[in-house]
Amino acid sequence: MIATKLMIPGPVELDDEVLLAMARPVMGHRTPEFEEVLEECWRLLGMVYRTKNEVAIITGSGTAAMEAAVASVVEPGTRVLSIGGGKFGERLGEIARCFGAEVSRLEVEWGGTFSAEEVDEALSESGAEVVTLTHNETSTGVVHDAGEVGRLAREHGALFIADAITSVGGDVVETDAWGIDLCITGSQKCLAAPPGLGFVAVSERAWERMQEVRNRHAFYLDLLRYRKALRKRTTPFTPSVSLIYGLHAALKRIERETLEARIRRHRALAEATRRAAEAMNLELLPEREHASNTVTAIRIPEGLSDADVRGRLKEEYGILVAGGQEKLKGRIFRIGHMGEVRAGELLSLLACLEQVLRCSGHGVKPGAGTEAAREVLEAELGESLRACGGG
Amino acid sequence: MIATKLMIPGPVELDDEVLLAMARPVMGHRTPEFEEVLEECWRLLGMVYRTKNEVAIITGSGTAAMEAAVASVVEPGTRVLSIGGGKFGERLGEIARCFGAEVSRLEVEWGGTFSAEEVDEALSESGAEVVTLTHNETSTGVVHDAGEVGRLAREHGALFIADAITSVGGDVVETDAWGIDLCITGSQKCLAAPPGLGFVAVSERAWERMQEVRNRHAFYLDLLRYRKALRKRTTPFTPSVSLIYGLHAALKRIERETLEARIRRHRALAEATRRAAEAMNLELLPEREHASNTVTAIRIPEGLSDADVRGRLKEEYGILVAGGQEKLKGRIFRIGHMGEVRAGELLSLLACLEQVLRCSGHGVKPGAGTEAAREVLEAELGESLRACGGG
Repeated sequence: MIATKLMIPGPVELDDEVLLAMARPVMGHRTPEFEEVLEECWRLLGMVYRTKNEVAIITGSGTAAMEAAVASVVEPGTRVLSIGGGKFGERLGEIARCFGAEVSRLEVEWGGTFSAEEVDEALSESGAEVVTLTHNETSTGVVHDAGEVGRLAREHGALFIADAITSVGGDVVETDAWGIDLCITGSQKCLAAPPGLGFVAVSERAWERMQEVRNRHAFYLDLLRYRKALRKRTTPFTPSVSLIYGLHAALKRIERETLEARIRRHRALAEATRRAAEAMNLELLPEREHASNTVTAIRIPEGLSDADVRGRLKEEYGILVAGGQEKLKGRIFRIGHMGEVRAGELLSLLACLEQVLRCSGHGVKPGAGTEAAREVLEAELGESLRACGGG
Repeated sequence: MIATKLMIPGPVELDDEVLLAMARPVMGHRTPEFEEVLEECWRLLGMVYRTKNEVAIITGSGTAAMEAAVASVVEPGTRVLSIGGGKFGERLGEIARCFGAEVSRLEVEWGGTFSAEEVDEALSESGAEVVTLTHNETSTGVVHDAGEVGRLAREHGALFIADAITSVGGDVVETDAWGIDLCITGSQKCLAAPPGLGFVAVSERAWERMQEVRNRHAFYLDLLRYRKALRKRTTPFTPSVSLIYGLHAALKRIERETLEARIRRHRALAEATRRAAEAMNLELLPEREHASNTVTAIRIPEGLSDADVRGRLKEEYGILVAGGQEKLKGRIFRIGHMGEVRAGELLSLLACLEQVLRCSGHGVKPGAGTEAAREVLEAELGESLRACGGG
């Protein structure tokens, strides 16, 4: 069976190297041999996170890492400012509430972003001790200004939790320079590792706060347990040895590509997708200047349904793109161009998308999307991609 | 590099079929194709659990599943009776405390077990709403009478949480017949699936209690989120697709072997290990009638150190057995004979162990251990194993 092509914002397709790494026999998790693998992972995670901070490796989804970050620094009554604007940003606030925090929300329109003034004001009004933000909001295809939030959080003496699950390893994330105290990411997005691992890079300030927060409700997801283990160069609970092998192989691939080249590639793919969408008379959900570089959210054209676009792409062409979530269900579709996606895969998707749109009655100039994308990819990646021979 | 042979109580070695399943390309986790794999896993988990209850599949270690079970039914002030007797039994109590429960402990000597009268009395005295037990206590090699605790829990109207992480799939666990309301297991033990998945089989009574417990502190590990997803035949968060492939392959192997034959094999391996230990003048930690059928805990003989036994087994023979944990550190070693372990592997280990003991100065009659084991294995498994030709 030939697998459906995944162009969703995670889980992403894995390189053979990564898949085969998981087939390696399982090692004892408390052995020097496995410690070597962990050491390499920690070194490489520091490289992609752009941090000197310690990184907790958690067996669980990205949400598990979100919960670990929040539950470790929040206790009943902690004042939290949750910056909204999409499913995942709001989830951070919801988790904080679950653990008893008093959550103030900075409401942000889904698809939009915030100004520095709004954040400044919300921090003042809420007196927040902790501020949470989803850097790259997968549900809306928006990238928010995490650097600015980090600066303001420091100014107000608040701890900064950033969910960078769909940006670390694919777009610029400066954990240290931006002052992110708890920087969360996941394995199955831009890192192109198998799903099932979450990570939190923890600043010294955050470790200190955890020691002061007495009334934490966490055990498996208590980051202080990870710190204790980290300092013995191990993990507090049995890690998924097989997934760590996959992670290790994926991170080595990033090191070979270099983080800089990888980010350049993601940005070129994103810009190509946006240009192609415009050339096909499609409308982006976010404003262009806040559009994500790892996932592109596009409105379903008037008169067409989710089935007309996503359904046909999957059934007729075997390509899976993501739909809208919650209030955007049926209104947008989302193309993931993260991880190992290369120019050829994006161009294939765009060619198929054009066919689907035309068959569903949406007016598109033949070849307009792929041509627009090709120009960007050639200019940005310096690759010579074969242009359309016809004319 | 030839991997060290794992004879520890998890993670266990995986069959090639299971390892290679993980190398399969990742599917979208919200597709009918993946739902089929999940359906099969649920059906087969019901078979190994001996239950009609729904089973939550959690990406995380066994401890994550323990936390999910506890945190979903406990709120600040809930009265919990925690039956101790080892590291993992006590961990359940510790988790309950983390989530605000008032925990009473039934103290059990490490290596020992409890009587029905003690449990009955402790339930009466504590007025417990929830009772927790680790069925097969890996840290001490003891199997407790979970059926009896289940009966008493019903009698006292308490919910019963059993950690059966190292017994499901290797020893008799009658989830429904014993009245286990939240039955926890893990992937990397008797199931011989890759580490990184935890499971909780949840009774109707337990679902009902969760809906009444308002002040739960959980999100990723909130079982009600799993129920909601289960009823749509999916998972609430991105599951580790690769690990689920591995789980699926492992469960299919159990179905082919049959659960009955698998339990018979585990019991024969355990009895063979115990007889061999006795024949080599070694002392079991637990009393014989409570000794586990998946892991055997043996005292390090007087005058020998952990390095004399475990160190030499690893360095000279490339076999990893487990050491003692916490208060048993340096005092015992533990042989895992769970998952895919077969007669030949156990006999190899015993032959090497004999060499190690003799070289370290412990008196052993040559061949006594393997001969004692061979007799049990032949009688119990009906296999003809080649006896020692010398005389």
